[in-house]
Amino acid sequence: MKGMKINRELLQKDAPIGVFDSGVGGLTVMREIMRQIPKEKIIYFGDTARVPYGSKSQDTVTRYSEQIVRFLKTFQVKTIVVACNTASAYALDTLEQDSEVPIIGVVRPGAKTAAEVTANGRIGVIATEATIDSGIYSKYIRELNQNVTIYGKACPLFVPLVEEGLLEDPVTDEISRRYLTELIDINIDTLILGCTHYPLIRSTLRKIMGQNVTLVNPAYETARELKEMLTELNLLQDTSPELGSNQYQFYVSDKADKFVRFANSIIKYGILSAKTVNIEEY
Amino acid sequence: MKGMKINRELLQKDAPIGVFDSGVGGLTVMREIMRQIPKEKIIYFGDTARVPYGSKSQDTVTRYSEQIVRFLKTFQVKTIVVACNTASAYALDTLEQDSEVPIIGVVRPGAKTAAEVTANGRIGVIATEATIDSGIYSKYIRELNQNVTIYGKACPLFVPLVEEGLLEDPVTDEISRRYLTELIDINIDTLILGCTHYPLIRSTLRKIMGQNVTLVNPAYETARELKEMLTELNLLQDTSPELGSNQYQFYVSDKADKFVRFANSIIKYGILSAKTVNIEEY
Repeated sequence: MKGMKINRELLQKDAPIGVFDSGVGGLTVMREIMRQIPKEKIIYFGDTARVPYGSKSQDTVTRYSEQIVRFLKTFQVKTIVVACNTASAYALDTLEQDSEVPIIGVVRPGAKTAAEVTANGRIGVIATEATIDSGIYSKYIRELNQNVTIYGKACPLFVPLVEEGLLEDPVTDEISRRYLTELIDINIDTLILGCTHYPLIRSTLRKIMGQNVTLVNPAYETARELKEMLTELNLLQDTSPELGSNQYQFYVSDKADKFVRFANSIIKYGILSAKTVNIEEY
Repeated sequence: MKGMKINRELLQKDAPIGVFDSGVGGLTVMREIMRQIPKEKIIYFGDTARVPYGSKSQDTVTRYSEQIVRFLKTFQVKTIVVACNTASAYALDTLEQDSEVPIIGVVRPGAKTAAEVTANGRIGVIATEATIDSGIYSKYIRELNQNVTIYGKACPLFVPLVEEGLLEDPVTDEISRRYLTELIDINIDTLILGCTHYPLIRSTLRKIMGQNVTLVNPAYETARELKEMLTELNLLQDTSPELGSNQYQFYVSDKADKFVRFANSIIKYGILSAKTVNIEEY
């Protein structure tokens, strides 16, 4: 939260939390928030018109993220969760500047857990090309623990394989084996799932990595950090929203129907609809 | 070209041709144009900030295509080639309306060839989800030949596999086998490669389909149709551009360096640079 100019007076306890991602992957983060702080209202935005972010540049990802933050602020959100590793890696510093609303990303919480749990000091990070190129996991982990070596590996085919539904499949096994072999060979004991899609192939990753490697899911850690932060700021919602109050609202930049189908397969909540927004106008 | 209000007086023989695609795939079309009409100047635009188009909606793909056409027209192009099947399927009709510059897509030329070459009247089309959903290949083929049955198959993993460089690889073989088995089972004799990335895995597709199926590459057919159209309009360039005159210029919406590397692997021309454009401003 460094660099932010949070104005606590402007923030309301019963305001919603804004959550955004390049597409559907951030729903794994939303799912954890729903589990850990079930009374909160949440506005989710998925940038399905411009997905994926993981192969794009810092300038582009930052411009897109700024538009989305402007959109979420129209709901007077009390905090914003950047539920996308690439956007957290590339845009968080810029988004935090001059923001009067607290903004948290998914990278720092995952990095913190990995720095704490490693025993042999060898940590692997699997993520998109952009997140790996940014070096951000290494930077955050080293701030907390200097006695570690971090091995980053970009896994560009995992997102398309997940989006194609090949969660447990020989092809996903084979591609995982190729990506992960070098991390196994250098004997890592901790692996950060540094892209919000990856928890959806957790069982494949577990099979390839074996039982002795700790898999860190930043979605879980982020929801925990969010809860702590809201508690500290006395912003945690203490009563459940009334029935019919639209506790969870979903917005996308394209293909709302397809999003709803995918979302229901991830968060098992019964999402009835998502609205389409022309995000370039923000 | 129906619906267009072409103003021949405004078009100059020595003006460039505009070519655009969602990313790098359209370079397979540009390559054919360079081969068939080597004296032409070409401005290529790849929408690398918003790639891929194949999973997006008609509204979104049309809005993006309109922005790109406005950008290309700033170069006083004499014609525009929509070198992307998804954009041709979803946006061509809209782009043609009121356009004073001729616009041609890649779908109609490929459909025409398939309608002509099939012997048993069973034609397969492989393409993105969007192109298949649009039903456009079926529509065009049936206009030319009523005695055919057309089988469409979306192949969403082909683009990521090509972009990852797995052009000849057991994983690409396995995915191809899954996608193509039903087309083999129904005994097609003609297969349209309905996405500009697919000619790059032609040898894999040939291996899976066998020697008796004709593979139709719309890139080749489009370049041929373009040459015919320019000849009819007396717009074919008759002298080669001077050395150092920037015969081929490349613009992208993101990651120019990465584009240049990929482009050089496809068109073997020696592309030195590509410029980045903020396409949302057009």
